[in-house]
Amino acid sequence: MRETNREEEIVRGTRDFEKNKQSRESEKRKKGRGEPAFGSTISVKTELSPPVRIKRSIDKLAMAAEKKTSHQKAFGWAARDTSGILSPFNFTRRATEESDVRIKILYCGICHSDLHMTKSDIDFPITYPLVPGHEIVGEVIETGANVKKFKAGDRAGVGCFVRSCGNCDQCNESLESYCHRAVMTYNGTDHDGSPTYGGYSDTIVVHERYVFRIPDRLPLHSAAPLLCAGITVYSPMRYFGLDRPGLHVGVVGLGGLGHVAVKFAKAMGMSATVISTSPHKQKEAIELLGADRFLVSTNDQQLKEAIGSLDGIIDTVSAYHPIAPLLGLLKAHGKLVVLGASKEPLQVPSIPLLLGRKIVSGSAAGGMKETQEMIDFAAEHNINAEVEVIPMSYVNTAMERLAKGDVKYRFVIDVGSSLKAD
Amino acid sequence: MRETNREEEIVRGTRDFEKNKQSRESEKRKKGRGEPAFGSTISVKTELSPPVRIKRSIDKLAMAAEKKTSHQKAFGWAARDTSGILSPFNFTRRATEESDVRIKILYCGICHSDLHMTKSDIDFPITYPLVPGHEIVGEVIETGANVKKFKAGDRAGVGCFVRSCGNCDQCNESLESYCHRAVMTYNGTDHDGSPTYGGYSDTIVVHERYVFRIPDRLPLHSAAPLLCAGITVYSPMRYFGLDRPGLHVGVVGLGGLGHVAVKFAKAMGMSATVISTSPHKQKEAIELLGADRFLVSTNDQQLKEAIGSLDGIIDTVSAYHPIAPLLGLLKAHGKLVVLGASKEPLQVPSIPLLLGRKIVSGSAAGGMKETQEMIDFAAEHNINAEVEVIPMSYVNTAMERLAKGDVKYRFVIDVGSSLKAD
Repeated sequence: MRETNREEEIVRGTRDFEKNKQSRESEKRKKGRGEPAFGSTISVKTELSPPVRIKRSIDKLAMAAEKKTSHQKAFGWAARDTSGILSPFNFTRRATEESDVRIKILYCGICHSDLHMTKSDIDFPITYPLVPGHEIVGEVIETGANVKKFKAGDRAGVGCFVRSCGNCDQCNESLESYCHRAVMTYNGTDHDGSPTYGGYSDTIVVHERYVFRIPDRLPLHSAAPLLCAGITVYSPMRYFGLDRPGLHVGVVGLGGLGHVAVKFAKAMGMSATVISTSPHKQKEAIELLGADRFLVSTNDQQLKEAIGSLDGIIDTVSAYHPIAPLLGLLKAHGKLVVLGASKEPLQVPSIPLLLGRKIVSGSAAGGMKETQEMIDFAAEHNINAEVEVIPMSYVNTAMERLAKGDVKYRFVIDVGSSLKAD
Repeated sequence: MRETNREEEIVRGTRDFEKNKQSRESEKRKKGRGEPAFGSTISVKTELSPPVRIKRSIDKLAMAAEKKTSHQKAFGWAARDTSGILSPFNFTRRATEESDVRIKILYCGICHSDLHMTKSDIDFPITYPLVPGHEIVGEVIETGANVKKFKAGDRAGVGCFVRSCGNCDQCNESLESYCHRAVMTYNGTDHDGSPTYGGYSDTIVVHERYVFRIPDRLPLHSAAPLLCAGITVYSPMRYFGLDRPGLHVGVVGLGGLGHVAVKFAKAMGMSATVISTSPHKQKEAIELLGADRFLVSTNDQQLKEAIGSLDGIIDTVSAYHPIAPLLGLLKAHGKLVVLGASKEPLQVPSIPLLLGRKIVSGSAAGGMKETQEMIDFAAEHNINAEVEVIPMSYVNTAMERLAKGDVKYRFVIDVGSSLKAD
């Protein structure tokens, strides 16, 4: 019961590292004057015989010591300031607790949000040093005593979050990505108050509930981007009913998210129209990805001819762009799902919402259950991200290229082969 | 087949009166030089014997003549220009065709959109003279030979539209208000090319498909506003699932729409929070309408305390107002339904859409089936609009008061008693 309270207290503070710091300092002070601290193992008052009490105390001390010593060195690349430049970084990962899985990271995708987070150019507080990466795949190398889903040697993946409260309405429906206490895979604060570090690193330790199984038929390097890019487009397609044969879905932006959205749309039996500022992407959109139609978003004539033709639109573009023409492409009751965060508010004309009952919404990745379903769906339908595999040493160049949209379609860092500790 | 083509051609042009005008002029020219015109009855070329041909031609001429002579005088009040000032207006209504119902208008609600339309201060083309009114109730005084739903003496209602194509996806699902060829009750173009005139008038002739039954237990004067205000809030509550006991819905603006939304919400077993700029409305919102909570939208502390408390919001305010605080009031997956048309685009921050999968949408009244369902629901639950009944002569003053929000909660014109022809 006591442990549960402690858990709750700490998790409540996950978004407030400073508060936790104060709490830890207070505990240190308590320890210093012999007061019991939450989580301490030496002051449990029970009516046990002296030998038993001593034995238990010794056991607990030994466990605590073991936990402490099992904190293991880790190594990755971190941004240190808003320049966003990544460089080698030594840190530690926590001990593998009883429900934890320790994963040797083999590949990690570079999500566009990594670029925003490293440079802190998004309306979100950033704590440096920051080790990015939430499209993580690798191999299980250690499991806690209570782990049931995994054993050493298993393929495993970690996505955008590594913990949630486990007890709220969202968690109860496996919508963990909407839990207010969800702990992001990096730039978050874990249950022990330590900062979370992402997948541009050699290992990660995660509670098994937040680890995915990666089927053997999915190549690891191209599966990595599914864990953010993939689920971020798949989840709204399911939630908004844009997943039925015969429907026609639009995909705005043909990058990391967009190209997977086209693949999912086709696998679900829908027609897919790509809407892009780049005419040169047309050939590949149709021939490689299987899109049915390509609209250049600056071509008014093309847009005019396509008015009212789409049941829904998955809009993957982060940069500010006009919303009104996209609403025009929708049929009545059509759904525009915005996935890119921009600092400027969206300019949404009210008339199309009123006269066409059109919806503007968004989506934040997906929960554990749906993400596993998406991975399995991808495996079943041979859906892989199209990736450019790079060594860790190339990461800063990759970030520059990503900022210019110069990638087909996702950079994936070959962490396993190219990350070398100093 | 020919008639069908004509029907299609004319209905296609409902939103373009000028185009129809040209078409009619062209037809006149054709008639002048002996060419057959769509809809004419004297030049059908078939291989019939001369006596049969002559007989048929005589019959058709007689029918046409009868139709023409049965055009009946009508009288109402019309706006003549963007001053929006209404004054007496003589016009004609078409003959009662075989599926038509002629209604003696007894009451007509004054919708806020009547104010916008008469002054042409909305982004929508207006043709003057304009007889407003689409919250019409009255008594059937004549029925066409094929009318099945009504007989003379029945109570009947007409809402926002008087015709639709009857054949598209929207019409097939009784979502006629979203049919591209729907003919608005006023400022539209009817199937015969004539302008439609609304309910600030003595009679109206409407195809029975577009006429509602008004149950005896609903007082006519307070039932009128249900036909626009009522269905406009009821329809999105049903469509967006904001109709289940235990949910908590917010209602922004306590006018014609808002006060009915609170009544529906309570009848559906939900909690209702009114959000208003006017603190003096609190007492009535809670005591008269049954709201559970009242938030003053300019009171930051109240809004802060209510963050994340609502499953959905019915926003009835037409004037421009901030959207971001309303999104803050929603729980994850909450729905904001905007019902007021403003010229300025809505400023929608993307982060709440992304992190909370919140929806911004709108709604345009409802279809025939759902509107009848709403009327019957209102009758069953004793839901009436709160109205201020006025004579026709007061209408310009009422419009001025409406513009200032000075009405509890809907003006309804007592057309039956107060409209006197010159």
